[in-house]
Amino acid sequence: MQKVVTFGEIMLRLSTEHYLRFSQSHSFKANYGGGEFNVAVSLANYGVTSEFVTRLPDNDLGKSALMEIRRQNVSAENIIYGGERLGIYFLETGAGLRGSKVVYDRNHSGISDVEIGVIDWKKVFQDASVFHWSGLTPAISQNAADVCLEAVKVAKGMGVLITTDLNYRAKLWKYGKAPKDIMPELLKYSNVILGDLDTAFMMIGKDKVNPNYKDADSLPQFYDLFFDQYPDLKYMATTLRYSRSASHQQIGGIFYDKEKLYTATVREITPVVDRVGSGDAFMGGIIYGLVLDTFDPQYTINFAVAACCLKHTISGDYNLATKEEVEALVKGGPSGIVSR
Amino acid sequence: MQKVVTFGEIMLRLSTEHYLRFSQSHSFKANYGGGEFNVAVSLANYGVTSEFVTRLPDNDLGKSALMEIRRQNVSAENIIYGGERLGIYFLETGAGLRGSKVVYDRNHSGISDVEIGVIDWKKVFQDASVFHWSGLTPAISQNAADVCLEAVKVAKGMGVLITTDLNYRAKLWKYGKAPKDIMPELLKYSNVILGDLDTAFMMIGKDKVNPNYKDADSLPQFYDLFFDQYPDLKYMATTLRYSRSASHQQIGGIFYDKEKLYTATVREITPVVDRVGSGDAFMGGIIYGLVLDTFDPQYTINFAVAACCLKHTISGDYNLATKEEVEALVKGGPSGIVSR
Amino acid sequence: MQKVVTFGEIMLRLSTEHYLRFSQSHSFKANYGGGEFNVAVSLANYGVTSEFVTRLPDNDLGKSALMEIRRQNVSAENIIYGGERLGIYFLETGAGLRGSKVVYDRNHSGISDVEIGVIDWKKVFQDASVFHWSGLTPAISQNAADVCLEAVKVAKGMGVLITTDLNYRAKLWKYGKAPKDIMPELLKYSNVILGDLDTAFMMIGKDKVNPNYKDADSLPQFYDLFFDQYPDLKYMATTLRYSRSASHQQIGGIFYDKEKLYTATVREITPVVDRVGSGDAFMGGIIYGLVLDTFDPQYTINFAVAACCLKHTISGDYNLATKEEVEALVKGGPSGIVSR
Amino acid sequence: MQKVVTFGEIMLRLSTEHYLRFSQSHSFKANYGGGEFNVAVSLANYGVTSEFVTRLPDNDLGKSALMEIRRQNVSAENIIYGGERLGIYFLETGAGLRGSKVVYDRNHSGISDVEIGVIDWKKVFQDASVFHWSGLTPAISQNAADVCLEAVKVAKGMGVLITTDLNYRAKLWKYGKAPKDIMPELLKYSNVILGDLDTAFMMIGKDKVNPNYKDADSLPQFYDLFFDQYPDLKYMATTLRYSRSASHQQIGGIFYDKEKLYTATVREITPVVDRVGSGDAFMGGIIYGLVLDTFDPQYTINFAVAACCLKHTISGDYNLATKEEVEALVKGGPSGIVSR
Amino acid sequence: MQKVVTFGEIMLRLSTEHYLRFSQSHSFKANYGGGEFNVAVSLANYGVTSEFVTRLPDNDLGKSALMEIRRQNVSAENIIYGGERLGIYFLETGAGLRGSKVVYDRNHSGISDVEIGVIDWKKVFQDASVFHWSGLTPAISQNAADVCLEAVKVAKGMGVLITTDLNYRAKLWKYGKAPKDIMPELLKYSNVILGDLDTAFMMIGKDKVNPNYKDADSLPQFYDLFFDQYPDLKYMATTLRYSRSASHQQIGGIFYDKEKLYTATVREITPVVDRVGSGDAFMGGIIYGLVLDTFDPQYTINFAVAACCLKHTISGDYNLATKEEVEALVKGGPSGIVSR
Amino acid sequence: MQKVVTFGEIMLRLSTEHYLRFSQSHSFKANYGGGEFNVAVSLANYGVTSEFVTRLPDNDLGKSALMEIRRQNVSAENIIYGGERLGIYFLETGAGLRGSKVVYDRNHSGISDVEIGVIDWKKVFQDASVFHWSGLTPAISQNAADVCLEAVKVAKGMGVLITTDLNYRAKLWKYGKAPKDIMPELLKYSNVILGDLDTAFMMIGKDKVNPNYKDADSLPQFYDLFFDQYPDLKYMATTLRYSRSASHQQIGGIFYDKEKLYTATVREITPVVDRVGSGDAFMGGIIYGLVLDTFDPQYTINFAVAACCLKHTISGDYNLATKEEVEALVKGGPSGIVSR
Repeated sequence: MQKVVTFGEIMLRLSTEHYLRFSQSHSFKANYGGGEFNVAVSLANYGVTSEFVTRLPDNDLGKSALMEIRRQNVSAENIIYGGERLGIYFLETGAGLRGSKVVYDRNHSGISDVEIGVIDWKKVFQDASVFHWSGLTPAISQNAADVCLEAVKVAKGMGVLITTDLNYRAKLWKYGKAPKDIMPELLKYSNVILGDLDTAFMMIGKDKVNPNYKDADSLPQFYDLFFDQYPDLKYMATTLRYSRSASHQQIGGIFYDKEKLYTATVREITPVVDRVGSGDAFMGGIIYGLVLDTFDPQYTINFAVAACCLKHTISGDYNLATKEEVEALVKGGPSGIVSR
Repeated sequence: MQKVVTFGEIMLRLSTEHYLRFSQSHSFKANYGGGEFNVAVSLANYGVTSEFVTRLPDNDLGKSALMEIRRQNVSAENIIYGGERLGIYFLETGAGLRGSKVVYDRNHSGISDVEIGVIDWKKVFQDASVFHWSGLTPAISQNAADVCLEAVKVAKGMGVLITTDLNYRAKLWKYGKAPKDIMPELLKYSNVILGDLDTAFMMIGKDKVNPNYKDADSLPQFYDLFFDQYPDLKYMATTLRYSRSASHQQIGGIFYDKEKLYTATVREITPVVDRVGSGDAFMGGIIYGLVLDTFDPQYTINFAVAACCLKHTISGDYNLATKEEVEALVKGGPSGIVSR
Repeated sequence: MQKVVTFGEIMLRLSTEHYLRFSQSHSFKANYGGGEFNVAVSLANYGVTSEFVTRLPDNDLGKSALMEIRRQNVSAENIIYGGERLGIYFLETGAGLRGSKVVYDRNHSGISDVEIGVIDWKKVFQDASVFHWSGLTPAISQNAADVCLEAVKVAKGMGVLITTDLNYRAKLWKYGKAPKDIMPELLKYSNVILGDLDTAFMMIGKDKVNPNYKDADSLPQFYDLFFDQYPDLKYMATTLRYSRSASHQQIGGIFYDKEKLYTATVREITPVVDRVGSGDAFMGGIIYGLVLDTFDPQYTINFAVAACCLKHTISGDYNLATKEEVEALVKGGPSGIVSR
Repeated sequence: MQKVVTFGEIMLRLSTEHYLRFSQSHSFKANYGGGEFNVAVSLANYGVTSEFVTRLPDNDLGKSALMEIRRQNVSAENIIYGGERLGIYFLETGAGLRGSKVVYDRNHSGISDVEIGVIDWKKVFQDASVFHWSGLTPAISQNAADVCLEAVKVAKGMGVLITTDLNYRAKLWKYGKAPKDIMPELLKYSNVILGDLDTAFMMIGKDKVNPNYKDADSLPQFYDLFFDQYPDLKYMATTLRYSRSASHQQIGGIFYDKEKLYTATVREITPVVDRVGSGDAFMGGIIYGLVLDTFDPQYTINFAVAACCLKHTISGDYNLATKEEVEALVKGGPSGIVSR
Repeated sequence: MQKVVTFGEIMLRLSTEHYLRFSQSHSFKANYGGGEFNVAVSLANYGVTSEFVTRLPDNDLGKSALMEIRRQNVSAENIIYGGERLGIYFLETGAGLRGSKVVYDRNHSGISDVEIGVIDWKKVFQDASVFHWSGLTPAISQNAADVCLEAVKVAKGMGVLITTDLNYRAKLWKYGKAPKDIMPELLKYSNVILGDLDTAFMMIGKDKVNPNYKDADSLPQFYDLFFDQYPDLKYMATTLRYSRSASHQQIGGIFYDKEKLYTATVREITPVVDRVGSGDAFMGGIIYGLVLDTFDPQYTINFAVAACCLKHTISGDYNLATKEEVEALVKGGPSGIVSR
Repeated sequence: MQKVVTFGEIMLRLSTEHYLRFSQSHSFKANYGGGEFNVAVSLANYGVTSEFVTRLPDNDLGKSALMEIRRQNVSAENIIYGGERLGIYFLETGAGLRGSKVVYDRNHSGISDVEIGVIDWKKVFQDASVFHWSGLTPAISQNAADVCLEAVKVAKGMGVLITTDLNYRAKLWKYGKAPKDIMPELLKYSNVILGDLDTAFMMIGKDKVNPNYKDADSLPQFYDLFFDQYPDLKYMATTLRYSRSASHQQIGGIFYDKEKLYTATVREITPVVDRVGSGDAFMGGIIYGLVLDTFDPQYTINFAVAACCLKHTISGDYNLATKEEVEALVKGGPSGIVSR
């Protein structure tokens, strides 16, 4: 079995219960999560050897995050310790016409002032076949962006496949740099990119192209424009999300390999139990497809969409569905039958 | 900014959790609410100076209600103290084909034996531009009805705009008087009335007219019949509610100014988190529209419907949406996007 | 009023909260239930004299189950005590595209090694007009099957009407016998059977007939095939369930009396609060129709479908709706109006 | 086995959790209890046939109380229905230097306007050997006092032993009568009275005698003074409570049969989980001793004190200890050993 | 009634439940508190007009803190808004031999970069008779220390009495300054100081004197040494705390007015529900004594000790005891009697 | 650092909350634990490499137990899978005069029918320096006893130090063998035994000696009697527990090395948060002392007692105290100071 390494931030997630608003909450549920860790958990659940690299503060909250990493069967072997605090995000879960709301309190975290030379990337990537990072990390601080670049360079040198989720967040990128200042250099090393086309173009400083995702035939030309910029890029994937309300989503997906565009049927999701991390579940599905000996683009996109859909029914940041459960959804439709 | 005063009862609301039936509940969530207070909270959340007048018992439950009033930024300056108990209502929240159920335990409350001459209405209405009361208060007891009349007379004399939500409840009006014995005199002072036409006619002892709310053109004649009775009436509004199930509601609204009928598009609400108080959220939206320097009937009804819809997604009796959130819904449709 | 006796197993039900998966749960809600007890509770709620017979372990969990039986106004007068443990089942409640999941931990329970001659069936059936058992009991162990046969023989001898829910569960029947080894003998005594046709044929070792339940006219011929095997059989009923997702079900029903086939309209159920025990609610409705002096087949099937639908909105194993609530749903459609 | 009947009020008890004050509570635990019902539960737990008579409102809260009565294996056969509401009491649990606090909200309950002639006392006392009432009931209303008198007269006529807990509460007796106006007549019928001497004298309008309970020899003279007034009185018992703090109590007891004074050793109770109802647990122990064929005054007071002590460790109004558990404490001291 | 102003930081307090350790917690209780705000709440509960000045971030957490301030009847009129985040502290509540543990996460809060000139202190101190600050604020940052100095100068100029709690925390003072660099200048303006002698001497850069607090006669000489440094100082108070375990504390107190030393009896506190903020409750008691028209040093220290003791029985940061409750404890000892 | 292997059963622990009795519980807290796993967790928390060997059922509960093992940083590398169910124990937590109560439901678990030859003990003990087992495992079934013997033989052969906690439970040993049939052979291999003398003698079929643990000088002669039977035995330790009540325990300890008897001071524990597993915490402390390069008998017993004491303040089966926290208690007494 191949080994996948992800690098990024894990945060304490404090969420309100039962659709309460922040001002109504006298307690918060405590979970841990973050885009890249969520991907690591997905892969561990599918039976892939999975490792997460980050920098954790040396206090009780950092220790609790570490315990959760281990609990999810994700290797914490190369995690380093230090920094001022564990990043936090507060989540108010919406319903129907009221969307969910996130209050970030993640500045000054351990990962934000991680330094070049401290993580032994050569050791990290020993036996690794995939390195996954996302646009969340270079959005945190110059330090985080620098270490991200350090990592992709070592990975590339060791022949590790590099996957990237663009993961744009308007509330990040506050340290004086825009995506276009940082991402073009980083993306050079990526072999697989997940994101929608206009986010991708924005991140490399290009104009929007406003693609019509419902017209599959029209899409390759736009993806090709992006591939033209990055010779190392092999695959590009896009999550299609139609958001009917906070409780009703529709999810489909696209996978493009420069030759052919593969699509998965759009599925209805209602109700939404927790949609945070559903993009990471999608990413986890893509990587799972890629590391299979029997890699098959159509299976890969089907699996990613089904994984993403199941994540919407699961509380917390990451997808706790097994490979068998995702495959059952890929094969059949929703049954809702009680398994007994 | 203008100041709005509301007068009525605030109760302890004890609700079952997670759709449990009363007989399954080993605990109750404790909130506070009541039609007129709910309106006051809506207005405070929109930035309007808001005051609530009531009579609270001088015990720990009355004190807790008072703390909640203050917490919501509603002035408690003219509240008076006394009486036997705080009214309670028990709420069992339904789902799908099972409707919600209320067990009232509100008799003998502080407000039920409030007396004329005890509240200093002249002081209350100083600087006030709107006085809001609802049909809940005169339905409690003769004393409450008398004080309500006392209040509207003073308000009228001081040039305060008077708004009324008819708020008919079959389980009230148990003290030997029917609405038609009490409401006609009270409504003489109202400048704005919220209610459906047949409730309005019933309350003044007239026959039902069975209007077709889906045929907007046919409605003014019926509203006019009512306006004919009340020369001081300036505006009449109606909440349109189509109740598909306890979890699925459709909400629209009508605002009529004797000249023109303004309607707002019917919106789908699914799931319903808590529909108690959604009529009060509608009323709060109407009053907000009225106190704006830039009063606009179409904006007013749009705002009221959007506020009512958002309330359905919020636990507890009152609408905790901000002006910005309501306006976002007025402008756009439901997005369900996570704000992050 | 007539008295109904049911016989079977009551288990401790440990369910996760708020759609959490098993691996996320740090607590379990504790309820009690089991197919035949659930039927007994339904009947008690409709005002029918109801008794449950089982064997409970003599420990604190058995005692808690007993207290729950009493709480539901079901007679525990003929329950016997002994055995190693109380059966448990763990329930993970699904949502949307993720189905619910049951982990059975019910082996070695008190009922599993109940012995012939220990329960005084003559005393049990004194004054009884109906005896209800289901296919769950003979699926547990040879002992349980033997006592079930003992019971039906006594009941038959005393002129008690015998009703049976086929209740097939693939995860049971693990003691070396298949349904076809046990059920044909037992079903000889049944006057009323609830189940779908192909389960019924399977249980008696016959081939499937693949009926089309949407074509009512085609069904009598298949039911007749089954009636031909069992001369004592008077009525057969089938629950129609179309499972759109774990959160969206459609329920209808069929009642056949050898002469005429009665159907009830299919109803939409969304959201599903808890669908476990909804078949038992259906069965309870059928028996309720049967024990009425005014027995009416169409009313019976309407009542059973409405009861089954309401059960989906109620947490726990059994239907806590009153006769009045079921009838209100039979008469009207869903209103979702708050009763206040 | 003998049958004991108790008569009084059962209330909904709403208590704060985890030592929270009323103003901090966003939920209340819901239990049911009341002095006389608590005694009934104690006896049912000891295996005595136990019946509770009251008047319950015909709503969901009354129904929930009824289910709790059945759950505790107490007969509800002669309960009558009607009245405006179920009485409520709110409980804030203290700790250490902060005492617990009760807010009564029990006026206008079903029992408060119960009427003479409505309860069929002859039927109630069939097969009964003990009738227990307490000073709580005549303290509620003239109606309740009248029915109490009606009951004791019938009981006396049928040869039933009558036991009484004086249960003085300063916050009751608000209907214009003082204990001395009502109790002297009622106590004439009592054969067993629980209470401290000065409360007893106060209730019959006599002066305090300030007995020193630590000097056992000095006590008979005072008890005799009371016995002199009531020729039917056979036994008098007193709970000795030394309240070190809300979390630390010391409990002893006295039992006097006109001939000899029996005392039980004072026990230390720390921490106190819930002391409400501990007097009722004491009373239950006394009655249990009395109905034993092997009645023994010393055993009776020992059992009553041990039962009272165990109650302090149990949440809710009533003692859930079994006869075996109480006896184990009577025999040995506290062991604190885990039973495994 | 006099008005008291306090200035400092209010934080979100996230505490584990039921003595759980951080690593066991899947949820946190959310409260708000901070040394100076806690004092403000105490005073509001005693009926004193109370105002709190701080700088809150303009997000949902800042808004929730503001609602809590209002709920406690503390004026928020002069609070200013801005800054990066609301400070947080995580609390693990200990028991017995395991002490409680705080993880501070309060850096970069709104108050930490408050600036001189932004708060209108003249407006703040209008009508104020007392200004209270504590050593927590200058321990946060140079900015906070500067604004603190700004405030005391204005207060002094306006004739406001200045009270100070030294409140030393080893985990603060991390911005490059030690107490002795900052506190001597600030303390010049204080009229009342709460603290133990050696903390006081340390804070002004003097050597420890190791006083024996159990030998009252020996203490004035040491206090006098401190008074000698500060001519404006009128009173000094010290909380005596003997910590037997996390669950057992002993509290006494000293009040010195340069003429006479007043002591209050040491009280036993067991169990401890929550000891955070008990020093603030002591301070609140001292200020309450000072603002009384009938100021009495002995009453003042008695009241402060009783308030401190009651706080230990109350969850959360601040003392929710009323004036009447504190006085009852001053007058009597612990009774533990249920008030009913 | 040395590696310690433990072998035994891990169970699902379902405990009532807030001192509720079983019959009051509508939910159970879910934890995982078992004597030998608890020891493994203690060691992992002290920084020792720790591995747990067991047999887990291949279902969701077995998987959740596995996740908890990983979470605690205990290696699960050699765990095997299979068997019918995960053992469960139900725990009712007592207080004061009411002891805690365990209902075992652990029969038929995966470990109970583990078979010889299935666990690769040579692989397990590679790099191991200590193997720990307890009397719980051979008490489960003959199979479990056989595999235990298999393990100790391999361990002995590989030079691994063998430690044993006698752990007698009256409710186990139900498969037809008494301790004396099984333990003598097993104990031959033990180098370190934890237990009281009379349990030890009972387990090897010898008479009780009734030692007086408070007279240290008298003890060596009794321990020597036991050592005489077992030439490989190096150390024997005894936990001294004086149980004042369920909430108040006193803990001391004895460590004997055939030459000298080391004792640790008895400590007061009040309140007890959770005493289950406190013996395992003691055992963990002994092993920790043994694996230190600087092994010191006095330090070892001091550490074990302090660890045992801290465990009483921690919920769940195992000790979550760090080495630093235990050492702090060894060095100082209880301080109860908040660490901030």
